[in-house]
Amino acid sequence: MPRIVTVGAAQLGPIARAESRAQVVSRLVALMRQAKEAGCDVVVYPELALTTFFPRWYMEDQCEIDSFFEREMPSAETAPLFALAKELGIGFHLGYAELVQGGTRTRRFNTAILVDKSGAIVGKYRKVHLPGHAEHEPHRAFQHLEKRYFEVGDLGFPVWRSFGGIVGMCICNDRRWPETYRVMGLQGVELVLLGYNTPLHNPPDPGHDALGLHHNTLVMQAGAYQNGTWVVGVAKAGLEEGVMHIGQSQIISPSGETVAMCSTLGDELAVARCDLDRTVPYKSTVFNFARHRRPEHYQLISTRVGAIPPAD
Amino acid sequence: MPRIVTVGAAQLGPIARAESRAQVVSRLVALMRQAKEAGCDVVVYPELALTTFFPRWYMEDQCEIDSFFEREMPSAETAPLFALAKELGIGFHLGYAELVQGGTRTRRFNTAILVDKSGAIVGKYRKVHLPGHAEHEPHRAFQHLEKRYFEVGDLGFPVWRSFGGIVGMCICNDRRWPETYRVMGLQGVELVLLGYNTPLHNPPDPGHDALGLHHNTLVMQAGAYQNGTWVVGVAKAGLEEGVMHIGQSQIISPSGETVAMCSTLGDELAVARCDLDRTVPYKSTVFNFARHRRPEHYQLISTRVGAIPPAD
Repeated sequence: MPRIVTVGAAQLGPIARAESRAQVVSRLVALMRQAKEAGCDVVVYPELALTTFFPRWYMEDQCEIDSFFEREMPSAETAPLFALAKELGIGFHLGYAELVQGGTRTRRFNTAILVDKSGAIVGKYRKVHLPGHAEHEPHRAFQHLEKRYFEVGDLGFPVWRSFGGIVGMCICNDRRWPETYRVMGLQGVELVLLGYNTPLHNPPDPGHDALGLHHNTLVMQAGAYQNGTWVVGVAKAGLEEGVMHIGQSQIISPSGETVAMCSTLGDELAVARCDLDRTVPYKSTVFNFARHRRPEHYQLISTRVGAIPPAD
Repeated sequence: MPRIVTVGAAQLGPIARAESRAQVVSRLVALMRQAKEAGCDVVVYPELALTTFFPRWYMEDQCEIDSFFEREMPSAETAPLFALAKELGIGFHLGYAELVQGGTRTRRFNTAILVDKSGAIVGKYRKVHLPGHAEHEPHRAFQHLEKRYFEVGDLGFPVWRSFGGIVGMCICNDRRWPETYRVMGLQGVELVLLGYNTPLHNPPDPGHDALGLHHNTLVMQAGAYQNGTWVVGVAKAGLEEGVMHIGQSQIISPSGETVAMCSTLGDELAVARCDLDRTVPYKSTVFNFARHRRPEHYQLISTRVGAIPPAD
């Protein structure tokens, strides 16, 4: 039986701060219907897909901050998405800000969920590699306060059997780290789903702004090839609240080739038929881990955090 | 003081089986003189640069096999290279098959050395990721018996302070593995030197032959960017003993951009002025490991060898 998963990369254009959850969900619904018409089994929405990318602002009022978070999933506002998924028989991947109450403290994560064709949540991932900074840096044109508003994810990089294959998730900056893909690769991942909000301008390092698209494609293609997996990266793109974000949402095959890509900065669907068996030639030859990996020489990766140059 | 290292990627065309060490060394000498004229501080030769790529043949006669190995370095045949390096004040990187006698057994490695401008060996690396197979597979158009003729390297991925920076080495198939670059990145590497012999045709997986150049560039650019390091990859290229090998020897900046590349399949020098301080913007922002890495979630990388899919 062929293992084809038809995937829709549902890029979103900007979401204004004033836009309501209901307004955003209506855009997600439109993309889901479009994906179903295109024959998709699963539609992939970006990181923090329900609101504007709020870590660009320094905020002290916790109520204001928490207005960007979801306390339950599905919620009243997102229920229509789950209902439509069930009605159409299509799965989805959704990124959102997750607020967890209970115990001795409130916790906040940058989260993504995987929902199957019955509308049931089958997987949850919480972002591990939080970029940016934790303190207000007024000299920046805009902030990137993910280290302030979120905790580091506590779920690792799990994978799930779903859609006839082995599916994993990561979020935005995670995609730049080879460890992300490798931990999933060691669990046999065949389809990695991820969303991103990537400003075109990087205030600490503007000399590389022109390379944003190159780096985006480079890290996802490398992660796909080096682990013999499909990778689906989906942007929230365009000029959002005065900050330009890259697009080029794309679907990458285990060969490291981009096989479908968005070319606007707005709401747009890119579709590819992903044959999960195309992972086999890579996983069984050049990236047959059991034959070729040498963990005895990798110990620094899991024991050392920062770089330590040799003594002078 | 600027930290410019001018690097020459000294690609070699094919070396015939009948070619003597002296003949090969004369080609290396010519490239070294050319590199010196181009202002190079160091010239980088490929993997197994002193002979034809002998793992393509199944051999049972150990004397025949050992004829491709070096018992000492420098040797009588390679001494002129060391002498010229000292005379010109230029360093070099050389890959060769290393035979180690002594103790209870003879050991054989696929090795590279780093030689400084005084002609002294300052670093040695032994290939960790041996590709191919250990047994004769007559159905292949040609063999790739590195797992038969070499032991897995026993030196890890060390780095050395040399040429005013922090230099590391790896060899051929090592470049496809993100662990290779990361272990060196965690030691602050600024310049990775590597050689390769990569057949255009991969007998176990011919469906990807057309992607050989894409994969070559992809993995080296990703390794450079993700660790904020220069990477210099140098081929033995062209039609050698009936087997075609890829070229595109290249010098890649910490931005993940290829800044110099060979475009023939013969002896050819590609040169770039590598400013080691261009590593800083990457190592101090997006790839500031101390700020962003999360080894608690990377444990599988150093504890699990092969992929283990989740239970059905």
